Amino acid sequence: MDRGFLFGDGVYEVFPTYNNNIFGLDAHLNRLQEGLDAIKIKNPHSKNEWINLIEKILSFNSVSADQAIYLQVSRGCDQNRKHTHGDLKPTVYIQASTMPLRIKEELLKGKTAISRDDIRWSQCNTKATSLLANTMYAQEAKVENAEEAILCKDGIVTEGASSNVFIVKNNLISTHPKGPKILPGITRDAVISCAKRLNLEVQEITFDKDALMNADEVWITSSTREILPITLIDNKKIGTGNAGPLWSLIYDSFQDSKNAKRSVSGRRLKKIESIIQN
Amino acid sequence: MDRGFLFGDGVYEVFPTYNNNIFGLDAHLNRLQEGLDAIKIKNPHSKNEWINLIEKILSFNSVSADQAIYLQVSRGCDQNRKHTHGDLKPTVYIQASTMPLRIKEELLKGKTAISRDDIRWSQCNTKATSLLANTMYAQEAKVENAEEAILCKDGIVTEGASSNVFIVKNNLISTHPKGPKILPGITRDAVISCAKRLNLEVQEITFDKDALMNADEVWITSSTREILPITLIDNKKIGTGNAGPLWSLIYDSFQDSKNAKRSVSGRRLKKIESIIQN
Repeated sequence: MDRGFLFGDGVYEVFPTYNNNIFGLDAHLNRLQEGLDAIKIKNPHSKNEWINLIEKILSFNSVSADQAIYLQVSRGCDQNRKHTHGDLKPTVYIQASTMPLRIKEELLKGKTAISRDDIRWSQCNTKATSLLANTMYAQEAKVENAEEAILCKDGIVTEGASSNVFIVKNNLISTHPKGPKILPGITRDAVISCAKRLNLEVQEITFDKDALMNADEVWITSSTREILPITLIDNKKIGTGNAGPLWSLIYDSFQDSKNAKRSVSGRRLKKIESIIQN
Repeated sequence: MDRGFLFGDGVYEVFPTYNNNIFGLDAHLNRLQEGLDAIKIKNPHSKNEWINLIEKILSFNSVSADQAIYLQVSRGCDQNRKHTHGDLKPTVYIQASTMPLRIKEELLKGKTAISRDDIRWSQCNTKATSLLANTMYAQEAKVENAEEAILCKDGIVTEGASSNVFIVKNNLISTHPKGPKILPGITRDAVISCAKRLNLEVQEITFDKDALMNADEVWITSSTREILPITLIDNKKIGTGNAGPLWSLIYDSFQDSKNAKRSVSGRRLKKIESIIQN
């Protein structure tokens, strides 16, 4: 009788953890609050309580692998199944799972995507558990041996089924602006920060499917997939067909920021300049 | 770990039963099959097995009230939470609840509705459990003491949050055509059949919000609410502000068809003719 089961009436977050440190903790907890506010569920825990819960789950971890903490809050159980509700006690579900280990050398080969019409609702900025459309896209991608389905609404590329999408053209990085058509990804924000730190030009602007297909580079970003280069969409090669130089820079920068906040070294900046100029 | 809880990955049906007879049994089971096909869940039961299950639930019923049988099939439980899935054993959840007793004399006063922009996904013909948008509308209606939220997409009235919508203007009955923008309601079909049986003119055609607000009559239909007259929308009176004559005819005809298939009597036809002519 949980409304999570009956109605998909809940929100969720996925917290990536590296060496038992939660990445983007505050950003994830803020977005959780925004999601709860958007669907009018009272947050059952304070930030500190959430942190304690997540750290408790992490403490059960006997393996050394990085973990993804899945956290779902549904509206709770009612006496009867009805669309409306009174004051209910929210249900909290938390689960840890191992994150796949990714090797940069393997990612350089690039990943495959399919494109699909975006039929989802018009409130995609709410990270809700009513995810049927997203799972259908993911399954279609899986059937086609693809990493992701990239979605287009009225000709405009919005995002992936469970990721944000970036393109690069002539060293200019673009991604869909925030708003109801996309999830405001924490990794998306981190990638924009990395780009700025690297003095790369990045704009939050809409682009169409032609721009996607003719980009020099395409990336998808998510909390568990970080930044993946997409080099084949609908069986058409993107750019050179391999991960591009800007992906490589952003990837390294993101790996750095995961482990510790540290400034970009002069050597790295030189490397960037030389790559961009070429 | 049920994908119904994690992803809203399931479909459902609500079977109204009158005197322990299931109304529209075949139509509901057919729509269940269509829903399962649409989201690629293998139907876990044959029609006969479903009927046996529903009748078993009904047999537990010790009260004489009419019952609504809620039946949900989700994709099942997986080992890990991931958007994609392999072959899973679908989860079946069935529940009986008492249907409210409605008195025609009380319904004649009419019910209230609010209007809202339709932000739902573009596959509303699938009766999926990813219902967050629908529940949000229902809750907004409840807060405003309204029976239903009537939805408009790009200016066109689609349907209610959990009902189909009919309007009457100059004795012509209109309702949104079937397709991805509305649920193909069983009661919607029954109302169209009743109208035809009564020689009333009915068309499946789109209409805009002005047509809704300026209609002589507005009805909503659903399996548990049957046919309700809406006489106030966004605090504006619809028609006379009371249930209209065509609602009354359709309502009676529907009550007849609920109990037994019988032909419309000459007396009733005369009554219809006299009402329409006036």
